Amino acid sequence: MLQIEPAFLQYPDWKGHSFLREEVAKFLSHYCRSPKPLKPKNVVVMNGCGSLFSALAATLCDPEGIRPSGHHRICLVSCLISFDVRPFQLTVEKLENSLKEAKKEGLNIKALILLNPHNPLGEVYSSEEMISFLEFAKMHKLHVIVDEIYMLSVFNETDTFHSVLSLDGLPDPQRTHIMWGVSKDFAMAGMRVGMVYSENRDLVQALDQLGCFHGVPGPTQYQMAQLLRDRDWLNSEFLPENRRRLREAHSFMTEELKKLDIPFLHRSAGFFIWADLSKYLSEKTFAEELSLWRCFLKHKVLLSCGQAFSCVSPGWFRIIFTDQLHKLKLGLSIAHFHFSSCILVVSPMEWDKM
Amino acid sequence: MLQIEPAFLQYPDWKGHSFLREEVAKFLSHYCRSPKPLKPKNVVVMNGCGSLFSALAATLCDPEGIRPSGHHRICLVSCLISFDVRPFQLTVEKLENSLKEAKKEGLNIKALILLNPHNPLGEVYSSEEMISFLEFAKMHKLHVIVDEIYMLSVFNETDTFHSVLSLDGLPDPQRTHIMWGVSKDFAMAGMRVGMVYSENRDLVQALDQLGCFHGVPGPTQYQMAQLLRDRDWLNSEFLPENRRRLREAHSFMTEELKKLDIPFLHRSAGFFIWADLSKYLSEKTFAEELSLWRCFLKHKVLLSCGQAFSCVSPGWFRIIFTDQLHKLKLGLSIAHFHFSSCILVVSPMEWDKM
Repeated sequence: MLQIEPAFLQYPDWKGHSFLREEVAKFLSHYCRSPKPLKPKNVVVMNGCGSLFSALAATLCDPEGIRPSGHHRICLVSCLISFDVRPFQLTVEKLENSLKEAKKEGLNIKALILLNPHNPLGEVYSSEEMISFLEFAKMHKLHVIVDEIYMLSVFNETDTFHSVLSLDGLPDPQRTHIMWGVSKDFAMAGMRVGMVYSENRDLVQALDQLGCFHGVPGPTQYQMAQLLRDRDWLNSEFLPENRRRLREAHSFMTEELKKLDIPFLHRSAGFFIWADLSKYLSEKTFAEELSLWRCFLKHKVLLSCGQAFSCVSPGWFRIIFTDQLHKLKLGLSIAHFHFSSCILVVSPMEWDKM
Repeated sequence: MLQIEPAFLQYPDWKGHSFLREEVAKFLSHYCRSPKPLKPKNVVVMNGCGSLFSALAATLCDPEGIRPSGHHRICLVSCLISFDVRPFQLTVEKLENSLKEAKKEGLNIKALILLNPHNPLGEVYSSEEMISFLEFAKMHKLHVIVDEIYMLSVFNETDTFHSVLSLDGLPDPQRTHIMWGVSKDFAMAGMRVGMVYSENRDLVQALDQLGCFHGVPGPTQYQMAQLLRDRDWLNSEFLPENRRRLREAHSFMTEELKKLDIPFLHRSAGFFIWADLSKYLSEKTFAEELSLWRCFLKHKVLLSCGQAFSCVSPGWFRIIFTDQLHKLKLGLSIAHFHFSSCILVVSPMEWDKM
């Protein structure tokens, strides 16, 4: 039986009620294949991963140590640097170079955000790759926020997701913080529920202090706990069906891209396809990329352009394919009419982390 | 029929969905007796009044005008200054003096927070008084946050609440911002829903920008809209019964205080009684007040001491009386046993705005 406080409607619990923290710990232990059971006290629940990123930035980037503060600047190492063995492949060498660049600019880099599965690439990193990134961070005493928000949205058997929580010991557990939320994998961006798992007590306490501005309503906490513990339904119904739909929509969109002779990264995770539309640019500049983006938008096509992800070569776009087939078809037909060959996807699914 | 977006579970609407803003505007128009219907576009909904205060402070205190910023300091004019015609009476003269003091200290006062009904005094201000405070603020170009969170918790006919929204025109509408939430009047602190009404478009837009960190879950927005529009049930059942219970608990506690010969302010609003326990202090100092507060706490009695409200004379305590009678009785009996004569109230109802 799920134990809940009877008065969860009346009493706020900023940090997440203990019953929810317990369910989150069990849920992550199971789906992240943690070798040991994860601890409820290491869980922080907030109203969405946007709030968590903001709170983590405020906390980790405080010049006087880990505590909530207003003085921060989000320090990102840009990852979409160039083609390599795999296109846009993230490597330790690139991280090293980016860090050097940032230091040259006088930036004091405190934290690294790693996305796995990656947005917008759809890349799923191997355990070896993740360990190498974490070792890099350890060497430079960087905190790492490992954003695994698409962990249950890997829709093809060719790719297997390995959470860093499945590792036999993290290289630097005090500086490694894992994030997940229900917005993507459960298509519930409107519920505003995100969570962080960290063994760093100072960080957890500092985040808890910020919780009074980012609490999750008691009834929502209760609903979330019920959802997370319903392992049978998730494993036998929701997750297989969700993966099937992702696979179907992805396969439809990639077939269309092939017909249009548009290069793209063929990946098996996330809600998007990273595609090279540079052949539709009148010249290969970011100004032209922006004008193509505006042209899409004018015809009610919402894509994200490469520049928004610090992509180095112009013309790359993120196409969200997770919509119903008839809408994708409608979009494509409008696109054909207006641009003779173009892609249309209208989906607000990515608003969550803006 | 209440119109809602079918997918309120999936799509976040930071600013509050339009259906909720509409219900809030109607609700406030009705209960605040606004001479004209209030406008939905002037409503901002966030996850609790704590978040709203934080967002308002960040916005109104920005040195470069109204916009979200991290550089702020909450500037309060202390009101609990001294006895007057009514004990602790707030007057324009006191506001003037406090403002002068603050300026002398080099503080740049940007905003004034007015509470009506007052916490912890339980005072209900007349329209004339509120107008005089608003005129004072106008003269000094101060923004005013009028916190009316206890507006429906006036439990005696001797007092009538007048919202500033009932005035025929505000003295300075661009600088007057009215706050309300469901935590107190509906005993729903765990729901995390607060709202501001302001005619200032810059402010509303700036608050909306901060909304992505303080959004209310879609389903909660839907539930709130349903609650706010159920005028029949509120007027014929909930509000009369709620007032009856408040009146009963208040009357029980004041009778006990009289028996113990403890002076207190006899008011008819809010959840608390402002009582003078100075006769239990071994000497009249704030150190002794604090030690009495600790002594209460040690015996699981949670009160708030006067110093926490900047009270000038030691020994005043805020006693929350809104609990079930048997708990109040239990509390009093324990208090009698431990202190020979004392008060015990255990209630987490005031956590909301900490």
